[in-house]
Amino acid sequence: MEGMPEESPQRPAEAEQRLDPAIAARLKRDAHGLVAAVAQQWDTGEVLMVGWMDEEALRRTLTSGRATYWSRSRQAYWRKGDTSGHVQLVREVRLDCDGDALLVKVHQVGAACHTGDRTCFDADVLSAVVGVA
Amino acid sequence: MEGMPEESPQRPAEAEQRLDPAIAARLKRDAHGLVAAVAQQWDTGEVLMVGWMDEEALRRTLTSGRATYWSRSRQAYWRKGDTSGHVQLVREVRLDCDGDALLVKVHQVGAACHTGDRTCFDADVLSAVVGVA
Repeated sequence: MEGMPEESPQRPAEAEQRLDPAIAARLKRDAHGLVAAVAQQWDTGEVLMVGWMDEEALRRTLTSGRATYWSRSRQAYWRKGDTSGHVQLVREVRLDCDGDALLVKVHQVGAACHTGDRTCFDADVLSAVVGVA
Repeated sequence: MEGMPEESPQRPAEAEQRLDPAIAARLKRDAHGLVAAVAQQWDTGEVLMVGWMDEEALRRTLTSGRATYWSRSRQAYWRKGDTSGHVQLVREVRLDCDGDALLVKVHQVGAACHTGDRTCFDADVLSAVVGVA
């Protein structure tokens, strides 16, 4: 480009917009580039929902304090609560031993589930044999 | 087959080996026929691990009292603890609102993680900005 030095340093803004390569290298993504993300209420331990993150959703989650997912149905980033107000404020993010799942500890404002339930697992208990030692 | 009636009733053993069709109809499987399964220690709320279940793994989990997964790496059913002794005794199984994730509340005997850690999320805490309201 005219007037631009040939070897300009990478712009900080651009560098900031990439997930830390050391984290990216540990992610084991599925065929769609996604890992499962379990959102858990940090103090009560409630499992709120399971979403999906690609590298960019994880970067946004780690850098913004707001849990952000990739919506497989809408094929778009989805910052939880932007529409509903039911935001997830990030407290801690952990990657599992084989890099294909994240545990996102959050403070959930209001209901996590689009149905209005506190969690996405409130409504459908399956009949199960209870295990004994 | 010689001597067999032409319209024999379905054998009970065969019927028992299918997941309840009412549950199967609610599952939203991925391209590999799998849903994510979050294992949680029923009393402490610890998220122990994330595994994967197809219909048959879920059927075995619901009917045996032992959490059973589909191992994507080994392409085989994996009844947790058969090798390690670190079994997961099922307490409750829940399906989420859109049918693509299960919450399996268990009593975990010993370590859930193959590394010897109690959970698969113990070792790798990512640096994250904490969200504020």
